[in-house]
Amino acid sequence: MSEQLQQTETVERWGRFEFRAKGPENGNPYADVQFSARFSYKHRVVEVDGFYDGDGQYCIRFMPESLGEWSFETVSNISGLNGLKGSLNCTEPSQGNRGPVRVDNVYHFAYADGTPYFPVGTTCYVWNHQGEELEAQTLKSLSEAPFNKIRMCVFPKHYDYNHNEPETYPFAGSLDKGWDFTRFSPAFWSHLERRIDDLQKLDIEVDLILFHPYDRWGFAQMSAEADDSYLRYLLARLSSFRNVWWSLANEYDLMYEKKMQDWDRFFHIVQAHDPYQHLRSIHNWHNPERHYRSNQHWYDHGKPWVTHVSIQHPDLNFVPEWREQFKKPVVIDECRYEGNLNHGWGNITAEQMVECFWKGMAQGGYVTHGETFVHPEDIIWWSHGGKLHGESPARIRFLLDIMAEGPQLGKTAINFKWDAAAGGIDGEYYLVYFGSSRPAFRLLELPEGIRFDIDLIDTWEMTITPFEDTFEGKCRVPLPGKPYQALRIRKAD
Amino acid sequence: MSEQLQQTETVERWGRFEFRAKGPENGNPYADVQFSARFSYKHRVVEVDGFYDGDGQYCIRFMPESLGEWSFETVSNISGLNGLKGSLNCTEPSQGNRGPVRVDNVYHFAYADGTPYFPVGTTCYVWNHQGEELEAQTLKSLSEAPFNKIRMCVFPKHYDYNHNEPETYPFAGSLDKGWDFTRFSPAFWSHLERRIDDLQKLDIEVDLILFHPYDRWGFAQMSAEADDSYLRYLLARLSSFRNVWWSLANEYDLMYEKKMQDWDRFFHIVQAHDPYQHLRSIHNWHNPERHYRSNQHWYDHGKPWVTHVSIQHPDLNFVPEWREQFKKPVVIDECRYEGNLNHGWGNITAEQMVECFWKGMAQGGYVTHGETFVHPEDIIWWSHGGKLHGESPARIRFLLDIMAEGPQLGKTAINFKWDAAAGGIDGEYYLVYFGSSRPAFRLLELPEGIRFDIDLIDTWEMTITPFEDTFEGKCRVPLPGKPYQALRIRKAD
Repeated sequence: MSEQLQQTETVERWGRFEFRAKGPENGNPYADVQFSARFSYKHRVVEVDGFYDGDGQYCIRFMPESLGEWSFETVSNISGLNGLKGSLNCTEPSQGNRGPVRVDNVYHFAYADGTPYFPVGTTCYVWNHQGEELEAQTLKSLSEAPFNKIRMCVFPKHYDYNHNEPETYPFAGSLDKGWDFTRFSPAFWSHLERRIDDLQKLDIEVDLILFHPYDRWGFAQMSAEADDSYLRYLLARLSSFRNVWWSLANEYDLMYEKKMQDWDRFFHIVQAHDPYQHLRSIHNWHNPERHYRSNQHWYDHGKPWVTHVSIQHPDLNFVPEWREQFKKPVVIDECRYEGNLNHGWGNITAEQMVECFWKGMAQGGYVTHGETFVHPEDIIWWSHGGKLHGESPARIRFLLDIMAEGPQLGKTAINFKWDAAAGGIDGEYYLVYFGSSRPAFRLLELPEGIRFDIDLIDTWEMTITPFEDTFEGKCRVPLPGKPYQALRIRKAD
Repeated sequence: MSEQLQQTETVERWGRFEFRAKGPENGNPYADVQFSARFSYKHRVVEVDGFYDGDGQYCIRFMPESLGEWSFETVSNISGLNGLKGSLNCTEPSQGNRGPVRVDNVYHFAYADGTPYFPVGTTCYVWNHQGEELEAQTLKSLSEAPFNKIRMCVFPKHYDYNHNEPETYPFAGSLDKGWDFTRFSPAFWSHLERRIDDLQKLDIEVDLILFHPYDRWGFAQMSAEADDSYLRYLLARLSSFRNVWWSLANEYDLMYEKKMQDWDRFFHIVQAHDPYQHLRSIHNWHNPERHYRSNQHWYDHGKPWVTHVSIQHPDLNFVPEWREQFKKPVVIDECRYEGNLNHGWGNITAEQMVECFWKGMAQGGYVTHGETFVHPEDIIWWSHGGKLHGESPARIRFLLDIMAEGPQLGKTAINFKWDAAAGGIDGEYYLVYFGSSRPAFRLLELPEGIRFDIDLIDTWEMTITPFEDTFEGKCRVPLPGKPYQALRIRKAD
């Protein structure tokens, strides 16, 4: 059986096409019905999993990556859902749609349209489980903040300050009566999708955390079958959202029930069932007493299915080492949070948070923000979203603007010594950050035969002051002898 | 031949007895004449090397460690210097003479009279080579400073900011005409001795650096014979000074001509020819690019002749690890200096310097200060002495006073978590330092059944504020949510 069901629909490049069909509601449609589609473009075929959306609705979502005519045909073990055909016309992307983010230039990122992307992320683990009012406030805060990536969880969170129940759950059932991990709860998923779209409108990439250990519902201790079925359902629903990244876990090594081969299997499932190959990584726990010298507890980011390194570590001095080790983009997705909590990971000053960003980014890595201030109603940005109270976001925006004006930073042949975090493009551009050190001057060994303009950047006061002179070769640059200064050194025209 | 030469002299315990005799001036008395003495006390005999002091003067110095009558007899290959006899009466030490510092309680130090000694050192590498005026100023500065230990070199120093010539040299000869490493220059040595005595009057231990790499005179590249002869001469002259410690080298691993077996041999010589077994250690270079994760370049402080660990490292979080590793006192003898130099090791803020002290000492280690401010005449405390300009010494005194009021600190069974550097005596006393972290409160897990008084210490403002309540078991302590706070927790009476 084969049938042309609809008129050709128009979808912009990296937009989302959705095809729906009615099918059986009896039995367990989530488990019993197989439903997918083959999208064809010239000689190319893309296989796309569909999903059951409740109420007899079967759905296929597709993100076209090539301009022009696409056709598709469904595949199902249910005859009424099998062989359904259609087509779509993929048009130029609208303004602001630059496509999904990809790895670029080994250590960096760019949108699919080639625009470099410098991630400055933030962390609101379960902002999407806080109800309409607070979620709206979070979106408003994000609209005013510099962040272009957010780390957030699919599952709700159980932890200090996190004791409320979410409004919906991913699975059918309840905490009291137990969950049916073979049936999903479409209301939960459509809410999550709405939030991902809300973030897309704010140009924010969603670093979606698929598993995490902070759990009282049993979602961290599901069977392998339930884990895999959950991943397949999630991938079928969400892969077509251009702003998603897959973070397989937060602090994966605290999920003691999972073995390394489970994480390998999850990566394989994600790799096999995301037709668009969104960015994939996994995030570790860090306890300074155990982990300072050794990262042996990390998942091996060298494995080929890991697209970039997602690290928790408080010391950004290691960024060059990790770049060398993995030859992939390095994102420090947690390096302690600006705030004043009891918890040591959540009570650094804004100065330290900004120092982490500069140290990481000047050396060609990327850094993620978080904020953890004690709050009378326990609404803490790191988990719940809400309002930002700290002093670091304005400085992070200042840094992002500087990064976006310059090249992607690599290791330079110049040794800027001991106290400086530095990167650049040799002979062209250098960014040199002194952090809390406070030299009164610096002897530089710039290349001979090239004149450089130098700006003194006060990263805390957010000022950029060009030196009148140009500099070349061995030279001495006066500095104010106070913390948080940087130099931007650019080849003079 | 045997002759009673003099009346019995009175010398206080740990004071210095000196015996002089005339002998040959011809040939090379430094090399040709062997001269030593055997000091006898009841059943005990102490063998003490003598030295040639120029002008036909042969000298034996001796520091008696036991009260009562001592006799001695010289031994020489020159008949006129052989078999000379004498005696001395060792009396109670005078006020302020507590004897040499020894290792105490595995990880700590005490004077020989049992008084605990908490080293807070400073660094003036070649203050003793700067001429009378500046040296007098340095002594005045030290008399007003909290420091009770100083790191200083025997040899002059050649380095940035260190280009002047010393007034005297340890050896006969000159830089132009070459040195005769078999002949010493008594004027050099008597000046050094005078400075060691000056420091003793200020209750300052002298961590005397016997070799260092920063050299233009050839003293870092002497032959093994010259090295050994230098050490023997130095030990004969200086071992009887109760306030000396032997630091075999500063940044020993930058002395590329020396092999590990040379350092072992030097330790053996020092061990064999210092009758009083003054403290012995050796100090490493640190380059953060190479050495952050690994200390494989250190001399093995586990070797039995190393009395304590003398480290250069900027991260005081490792103190508990080093204590565990070596089971010896851990002294961080360089952790970057307060100042504003071009050099990364010399431009930290006073806040960071004080943070190093608190982190190190709260965890049962010890820390050494240095100061490196740009100066119009290039007089920099770290090398030349002079005046102190920084803000850390007052805070170091405040810390020393707190340390001296409390017990020697060990590892506690309580985990004060992530952001705190802590030590204590379980059930009795805890010192908990939060550094640049700024918790607004802290949940403590103190022992049950014991009431504790707690003081809030602002380590920067130098205030101590007792909480009115006492605390016990699991409890919550309010904190001001700003950096540089500490808690002193003491068992209530």
